[in-house]
Amino acid sequence: MKILLVNGPNLKALGTREPAIYGHETLDQIVSRVKAAAAAKGVALDAVQSDIEGELVAVINAARGVYDGIVINPAAYTHTSVALRDAIAASGVTTVEVHLSNTHKREGFRHASLTAPVCVGQVMGFGGAGYLLALDGLLDVLKTK
Amino acid sequence: MKILLVNGPNLKALGTREPAIYGHETLDQIVSRVKAAAAAKGVALDAVQSDIEGELVAVINAARGVYDGIVINPAAYTHTSVALRDAIAASGVTTVEVHLSNTHKREGFRHASLTAPVCVGQVMGFGGAGYLLALDGLLDVLKTK
Amino acid sequence: MKILLVNGPNLKALGTREPAIYGHETLDQIVSRVKAAAAAKGVALDAVQSDIEGELVAVINAARGVYDGIVINPAAYTHTSVALRDAIAASGVTTVEVHLSNTHKREGFRHASLTAPVCVGQVMGFGGAGYLLALDGLLDVLKTK
Amino acid sequence: MKILLVNGPNLKALGTREPAIYGHETLDQIVSRVKAAAAAKGVALDAVQSDIEGELVAVINAARGVYDGIVINPAAYTHTSVALRDAIAASGVTTVEVHLSNTHKREGFRHASLTAPVCVGQVMGFGGAGYLLALDGLLDVLKTK
Amino acid sequence: MKILLVNGPNLKALGTREPAIYGHETLDQIVSRVKAAAAAKGVALDAVQSDIEGELVAVINAARGVYDGIVINPAAYTHTSVALRDAIAASGVTTVEVHLSNTHKREGFRHASLTAPVCVGQVMGFGGAGYLLALDGLLDVLKTK
Amino acid sequence: MKILLVNGPNLKALGTREPAIYGHETLDQIVSRVKAAAAAKGVALDAVQSDIEGELVAVINAARGVYDGIVINPAAYTHTSVALRDAIAASGVTTVEVHLSNTHKREGFRHASLTAPVCVGQVMGFGGAGYLLALDGLLDVLKTK
Amino acid sequence: MKILLVNGPNLKALGTREPAIYGHETLDQIVSRVKAAAAAKGVALDAVQSDIEGELVAVINAARGVYDGIVINPAAYTHTSVALRDAIAASGVTTVEVHLSNTHKREGFRHASLTAPVCVGQVMGFGGAGYLLALDGLLDVLKTK
Amino acid sequence: MKILLVNGPNLKALGTREPAIYGHETLDQIVSRVKAAAAAKGVALDAVQSDIEGELVAVINAARGVYDGIVINPAAYTHTSVALRDAIAASGVTTVEVHLSNTHKREGFRHASLTAPVCVGQVMGFGGAGYLLALDGLLDVLKTK
Amino acid sequence: MKILLVNGPNLKALGTREPAIYGHETLDQIVSRVKAAAAAKGVALDAVQSDIEGELVAVINAARGVYDGIVINPAAYTHTSVALRDAIAASGVTTVEVHLSNTHKREGFRHASLTAPVCVGQVMGFGGAGYLLALDGLLDVLKTK
Amino acid sequence: MKILLVNGPNLKALGTREPAIYGHETLDQIVSRVKAAAAAKGVALDAVQSDIEGELVAVINAARGVYDGIVINPAAYTHTSVALRDAIAASGVTTVEVHLSNTHKREGFRHASLTAPVCVGQVMGFGGAGYLLALDGLLDVLKTK
Amino acid sequence: MKILLVNGPNLKALGTREPAIYGHETLDQIVSRVKAAAAAKGVALDAVQSDIEGELVAVINAARGVYDGIVINPAAYTHTSVALRDAIAASGVTTVEVHLSNTHKREGFRHASLTAPVCVGQVMGFGGAGYLLALDGLLDVLKTK
Amino acid sequence: MKILLVNGPNLKALGTREPAIYGHETLDQIVSRVKAAAAAKGVALDAVQSDIEGELVAVINAARGVYDGIVINPAAYTHTSVALRDAIAASGVTTVEVHLSNTHKREGFRHASLTAPVCVGQVMGFGGAGYLLALDGLLDVLKTK
Repeated sequence: MKILLVNGPNLKALGTREPAIYGHETLDQIVSRVKAAAAAKGVALDAVQSDIEGELVAVINAARGVYDGIVINPAAYTHTSVALRDAIAASGVTTVEVHLSNTHKREGFRHASLTAPVCVGQVMGFGGAGYLLALDGLLDVLKTK
Repeated sequence: MKILLVNGPNLKALGTREPAIYGHETLDQIVSRVKAAAAAKGVALDAVQSDIEGELVAVINAARGVYDGIVINPAAYTHTSVALRDAIAASGVTTVEVHLSNTHKREGFRHASLTAPVCVGQVMGFGGAGYLLALDGLLDVLKTK
Repeated sequence: MKILLVNGPNLKALGTREPAIYGHETLDQIVSRVKAAAAAKGVALDAVQSDIEGELVAVINAARGVYDGIVINPAAYTHTSVALRDAIAASGVTTVEVHLSNTHKREGFRHASLTAPVCVGQVMGFGGAGYLLALDGLLDVLKTK
Repeated sequence: MKILLVNGPNLKALGTREPAIYGHETLDQIVSRVKAAAAAKGVALDAVQSDIEGELVAVINAARGVYDGIVINPAAYTHTSVALRDAIAASGVTTVEVHLSNTHKREGFRHASLTAPVCVGQVMGFGGAGYLLALDGLLDVLKTK
Repeated sequence: MKILLVNGPNLKALGTREPAIYGHETLDQIVSRVKAAAAAKGVALDAVQSDIEGELVAVINAARGVYDGIVINPAAYTHTSVALRDAIAASGVTTVEVHLSNTHKREGFRHASLTAPVCVGQVMGFGGAGYLLALDGLLDVLKTK
Repeated sequence: MKILLVNGPNLKALGTREPAIYGHETLDQIVSRVKAAAAAKGVALDAVQSDIEGELVAVINAARGVYDGIVINPAAYTHTSVALRDAIAASGVTTVEVHLSNTHKREGFRHASLTAPVCVGQVMGFGGAGYLLALDGLLDVLKTK
Repeated sequence: MKILLVNGPNLKALGTREPAIYGHETLDQIVSRVKAAAAAKGVALDAVQSDIEGELVAVINAARGVYDGIVINPAAYTHTSVALRDAIAASGVTTVEVHLSNTHKREGFRHASLTAPVCVGQVMGFGGAGYLLALDGLLDVLKTK
Repeated sequence: MKILLVNGPNLKALGTREPAIYGHETLDQIVSRVKAAAAAKGVALDAVQSDIEGELVAVINAARGVYDGIVINPAAYTHTSVALRDAIAASGVTTVEVHLSNTHKREGFRHASLTAPVCVGQVMGFGGAGYLLALDGLLDVLKTK
Repeated sequence: MKILLVNGPNLKALGTREPAIYGHETLDQIVSRVKAAAAAKGVALDAVQSDIEGELVAVINAARGVYDGIVINPAAYTHTSVALRDAIAASGVTTVEVHLSNTHKREGFRHASLTAPVCVGQVMGFGGAGYLLALDGLLDVLKTK
Repeated sequence: MKILLVNGPNLKALGTREPAIYGHETLDQIVSRVKAAAAAKGVALDAVQSDIEGELVAVINAARGVYDGIVINPAAYTHTSVALRDAIAASGVTTVEVHLSNTHKREGFRHASLTAPVCVGQVMGFGGAGYLLALDGLLDVLKTK
Repeated sequence: MKILLVNGPNLKALGTREPAIYGHETLDQIVSRVKAAAAAKGVALDAVQSDIEGELVAVINAARGVYDGIVINPAAYTHTSVALRDAIAASGVTTVEVHLSNTHKREGFRHASLTAPVCVGQVMGFGGAGYLLALDGLLDVLKTK
Repeated sequence: MKILLVNGPNLKALGTREPAIYGHETLDQIVSRVKAAAAAKGVALDAVQSDIEGELVAVINAARGVYDGIVINPAAYTHTSVALRDAIAASGVTTVEVHLSNTHKREGFRHASLTAPVCVGQVMGFGGAGYLLALDGLLDVLKTK
C-alpha cells in the first residue's frame, strides 16, 4: 500500500508562520511523524509540497495508478481552487483533506471548501497531530473498500 | 481523565437509517468501539444520546467540572442549533465535533456548522471509525494543554 | 393498513390560536374527523402531537416497520428542522405534509419547507379539511406503490 | 356550481413527457377523471389548456362572474408569471393551485410560486390524483364561504 | 395582575457561563430580584426556565388566560425558533423580550430576532438589571392598554 | 406625428380589477381620454392591448418607421420580460413607460423594471391620468430631439 | 391651493453639472417654469432647495397643515435617506417624486428609492419638463381626493 | 452625574406624526418626563434635538469629558448613519439607544442598527416610557462601572 | 435525418435591430445559409420563428418523434422561460443552443441560461455563422449517439 | 495652482478619538503638515472640515472653477453618501480620496467606497502621512493632465 | 495565418479522467485533429498545455503580435482566474473559449465564466469536436475583421 | 534598510497592455524609477515579477528576516488569492499594496481585495507614480515603528 502526502502553499513556513494559529512544529517534523506512523503500519508514504497550484494539480494527476490514497492539506487553495478539486476527482484516488487549524473559527471565506466534496473525509483543528488522524482515517477507508 | 460522548437526533436509528450514507453499524456498536478504545488508553468514557436539543444543552451544561473533554456528533442540530453552540461555549469543556458522513458532499445547508467554531476540531466522512479519530484527536489536545 | 398522524408545535392551541389564520376547529375535532374518514376506508389511524422537535423525531423513527404511511403537520418546524427532515428520510415511511394555512401568503421565512423535499406531496390552505385531502392523497400513493 | 380547470404549458405532452417525474396518465385521462368526479358531486366543470401565458391570463380574466372556482396547474409559469398571478387576483375567483410533481424535490427555482399567494391553497406531488384532491379542497372552501 | 417570567436555554448556567459576556449573577439571583420588584408593585410573578424549545412553547400556550403579561429571555432560540414566535402570537399575552448581552455587538446571526416582531418591545445589554427594566416596561404597557 | 399606445396583460379587466389599486376607469375610457388629448395636440394615436408577451413584442417590432413614439404600460411583463425590453431597444422608437399604481408601494418583485432602462422615462401612481402625463412627456422629448 | 417644491442636494449645480445626464437648464429656470405653470392654474407654489438632509426633513415637517401637496426631487437622498422617507410619511402631505434623469439607466444603487413608497407617484427621465408633469399629476390627485 | 439626551430627525413632529406608530405624546412632554425622573435621582440632564446628522455628530463629539452618559434616539439615522456610529465610538461616553416603536415589527431596513453595536444596550417599543427605562438602564451601568 | 431550427422573439427584426450587437444579416439570410449547409450534408432542415413563448413550447412538444435534433436560439426567453426549458426536456430531442452575440459581454441577467442545462451544448458570439457551427456540432453529436 | 483639502465627519476629534485606529495627531497638525508641504511646492491649499454631509456637498459644488484639485477624507460618508459622490462628479475637479486607517482591516461595511469610483485614486492606512502622499499623487496627476 | 491552441489544467488527463463527463479521446488526439483541420485550411496551429495559471498567462502575453487568434480551453481556471482574463484582454489577440462539457449542466460555480467576457465567443458541450467548431468560428471572425 | 518590490501577473506586458487603463510606462521604467527613489533615500530595493501565484508566495515567504518592507502590486491575484494573503501574513514583513489603476472604477469583482487586510495600507489610481507614493508611505511606517 502506497500513500501520497500533499502539502500546499505557505506550509514550508510552518513553525515560524503565525504559531498562534499553526503551531510550532515545522513541516519536516510533521512529515517525519507521518512517515514513521505509516511505516509502523507497513505503509509506504511519499511527501510533496508546492506553493504552485498547477504543480499540485500535476502531482495529483500523476498519482493515478501509483498511489492507493492521498492525504492532502490544500491550505489556501482549499477555498479558491477548482483546478485542485478537478484533479482529485480526475485522479480517482481516495483522498482525505486535513487542516492544521479549525477553519470554522476564522474568516468567513475559509468556511467553504472546494475540495472537500471530492474527498472521502476531512480532519481539522488538531495541528500536526491531525495528519496522523487523517492517515488513520484514510487507511481505514481503504481497508474496507 | 473522563470523556463524554454525546450523540444527537436520529442517531439511534443508525444501522437501518439510509445505510448508503451512514453505514451499517448501529450506535451501540459504535459506542462500544469508542469505549473500548478509551479504556485501552486508561480513559473513562460516558455516552449519552438524545433527540431533544434542550436535553443535549442540559447534558453539556452539566459536563462542566465533571468531564475533561467532549466528543459530539450534533447530527442535524449542527446546522440549526445556536443553543448547542452556546452550551459548548458556556461549558468551557474542550470539545471535538464528529460526523459520520462527509457533509460537504450533501445539501448546501449541511455545509455550514454552527457548532464547529466553538469546538477545537472536526472529523467527518469516516463513518463509525471517525469517532475513534475524534477521541484520539481530543486526547492529543488535552495532553498538550 | 396503518397510518400515523403527527402534529407539531402550537397545534394543541388550535381553535383559540389566531382563528383568522388557523380557523375555529380544535385539534381534537380535526383528529376525530380524520380518524372517522380513515375508519370509513378500513384504515387504522393513530394520532400524536408534541411541541418538542426531538419527540417528533423519536415518534417518526419509531414509525419504521409499524406504519404504512404518515400524515404530518410539522407546523413551525417545517421551516427550521433539519432533524425532522432527517427523521422522515431515515424512517423510510411514505409521508405527506399538510398545513392549515397557505404558508405562501405569510412571512417570507414560511415559504421554504425543509421537510417537503423528503415527503411525497404537500397539501396546504384548506384548514382542517386539508388533513382529509392529505390522507386521501397518501392512501392513493400507497395503493399504487 | 361551475368550476374551471386550467392547465398550463407542456401539459398536453403528459403521458410521454418524462414519465419518471410526471407519470403515465395523459392530460385527457386526468381531465376525464376530474370531470367525472365533479359530475358525481353535481358540479359542472370546463377544462382548458394552453401553452401561452397570455391566453391563460385571458381565460382567467373571463372566468369572473362565470365560474365559482378555478383549479389551476400553472406548470412552468408558476415560477415566472406575474401576469398569471395578477389575473387570478383580478378575477376574484377562488382558486386552488395543483402540481403533478412535488416541486420541492426539484431545482431551486421550482421551490417558489408566484401564483400560490393569490390562491386559497396548494396540492402537489400526487400526480393526476392531486387534481381530485384540489377539486375536493376547492369545493370545501366554496361551501364554507 | 399576574406576570410570567420565561427563561430559555443555557440560562441555568448563568454566573459561571462566560461571565465576560453574561455577568456574575446567577439565574436564581436575577429571578429573586425580579420577584421582589414585582411584589413591591403588588404584582405576582411566576418564573420558569427550560432548555427545551417545545417546553417553552407549551408554557407560553398555557399562559393564555392565566397571565396578564410575559417577560421572556428566549436566549439562543431568539434566532432560530419559529415555534416560539408562533407560541407568543398564539397566546395573545402581551410579551416583552429581554437579553442580558447586547446581541448587536456579537455574531451576525444574533442580530436578527424571530420573536421580537410578536413582542411589544425589547430590552438588551443591561445584564440582570435589564429584567427589571423589561418588567417596568411591560407593566407600563399593561396599564395603558 | 404618430404615437402608439401599448397596453399589456390584464388591462382589459380595468374598472372591475382590484379597484382599490387600479381605480374604476375602464381601459376604453382611458384610451379615449388619451386619444382626445392627442388629437387636441394634432397628434394621431393608435392603441393596442394584448395579454400575450410575444404579440406585444411583434407590435413593437412593427412600430419601427411607422410611429414617432410609444407609450407603454407593460403591466406584469414590466418585471419579467426581457423580450419586451429587447423589442423596445430593437425598434429604436422613443418610448415612455407608464403604470397605473405606484409599484414601489407593492411587493418587492414589482420594484424592479426590466423595460425602464430602455425607455426615455417613467410615470407611475396617477391612475388613468398618468397616461396623459406620459403622452405629454413623450411629446416634449420628441419635440426637443 | 398651496404647493411646495422641494429640491435636494447638488441641484443648485444644474446647468453646469454633467449636462449629458441632467440637461442645460438651471434650477432657477426650472423653478420659474413650474411657478408659471402653477400660477396659470391658480395655484401658489413655494420652492426650497437644500443640500442638507436634515434641513429637507425640517422643511417637510413644517409643511404639515401649510401646503396641500409637495413635489420633491430628493436627488441623491432618494437612495439613502430613511429620514426623508419618515418626514414625508410624518407630514401627511400628498407628495410626488420627480427625477431629471431616468435612474433605471444608471448605477444599480440608483434603481431603488426609499422615498417612492411614501409618495403617491413618481415621474422620471423628462429633465426639467418632468417637474411640470409631476405638478399636473399632483394637482390631479388632490382634485380627486 | 451629567446625562445628555439626544433626539434625531423627525422627532420634533412627535404627537402629530403617525400616532398609531409613535403615540400622542410630544417630544417636549417626553423630555420633561425624563428630566423629572433624572432630577428625582439627583442627576442633571440636558436634551438636544436635531434633524441634521452632522449636528448630532458634533453634539456627541462635544459630549466627551462633559457628560457621563448619553441616551440617544437616533430615529431614521439608526439605519443609515456610519457617522453617528463613529461619533459614539469616538466620544467614549457610555451610550444607550432607545426607540419609541418596536422596529422589528416594521420594514426590513429598520431591523438593523448601525449604532447599536457601539452602545451599551437598547430599549425599544415602549413609546415615551422607554426613555425612562433607558435612563434607568444607563444609570445602572454607570453605577457598576 | 431531419433537423428543426427554432428562432425566438425579436429575431425577425435581425439586420435592422441594433446591428452593432447582432450584425447586418437578416433572419432569412441566416436560415437560407443553414438550410444550404444542411442540404449539402444530406440533412433536411425546417425553420420556425415565433415571438410567442407558448408557440415555441408547442413547436418543441410537436418535434418529438418527428425531428432528430433541434438548433434553437431562444433569444430573450433564454433567461426567463422555464416553460421552454421544460419543453426541451419533455421532447427528448437532442438540442443545441445558439446565440448571435456573446451574452457574457452584456447585462448580468443575460449571463444565466435556463435552457442550456437541458441542451447538449451551446455556441455563442459568432453571429449568423454560429448557426452553422451549432448545426455541425449537433450532427456530430447525433452521429456518435 | 490651488488645492482644496476637505475633511468629513468626526475628524475634528482626531488625536483623542480611538488613537489605536486613528493615531495621536490632531486634525490641525495634519492640516499644517499638508499646507507646509503644498507651500514648499508653490501650491496654495485651503482646508475645510464639516460634520454635515450637505455642507461638504456645497463646498465641493463651489470648488468648480476655483480649485485645480481636491484631497478629500470623506470619513464615514465614504460608505453612505451618494450625495458626496454626485458632488465630486458634478464639480469636475480632479479629486483624490484619503483615509487615515486601512478600511479593509475593519467592518465589512467599510470595505466599499461610494466616492472612490469618481476619484482619480485612493490612499489609505498611513495615518496623517497619507495626506502628504495623496497631495503628491494629486499634483502628479494634475501635472500630466 | 497563425493560431494558438491553449489548454488549461487537468487536460493532460483526458481520456482517463471522468470519461462520462469528458469523453475517451486523449488531449493528443484532440490536438492532432485540430492541427489537421487547421492545416487543411492553410492555417498554422501551435498547441500548448499547462496546469499552471501563471504559465498560461505568460503564454498568452507572448502571443501578442505572433498569433492572429487563440482557441483556449481554460478548464477550471474559467471560473477562478482574473489573471487569465486580464492576459486575454492585454494580449489584444482575438480569442475563442471552448469547453468539452456543457458547464451549465454541472455545479453552480461552473455556470459563470471570468474569461468569456473578453473572448469573441464560446463553444461548449461537444467534446473534442467542439475544438473544431471553435477553430471554424475563430477563422470566420478573423476573415470578416 | 532593505525593501522588496513584488509585481504580479501580466505586469511584464505594461506599456503595451491596454494603455488607456494602465498607461504607457513599461515595468522596467517603473522599477527603475522606484529604485532611483529608494537609492536617493539610502534604501536598497530588489524587484521581482512573476505571473505565477505560487512563485509570488515563495518570494514573500523568503522575504522574512531579509527585507524590512514589501511594496506589492498583486494585480489580478488581489481579487482571487488567499495564498498570497496568507504569505504576507505569514512573512510578518510590513507590506504596502499598490495598483496602477483605480480598481473601484472597474468591474465589481475588482472592488474587493483579499490582500489589503494584511497590508498596512493601499495606494491606487496613480499609475507608475503610485509606486513612489507606496514606497514613501512604507518608509514612513517603518520609521515610526
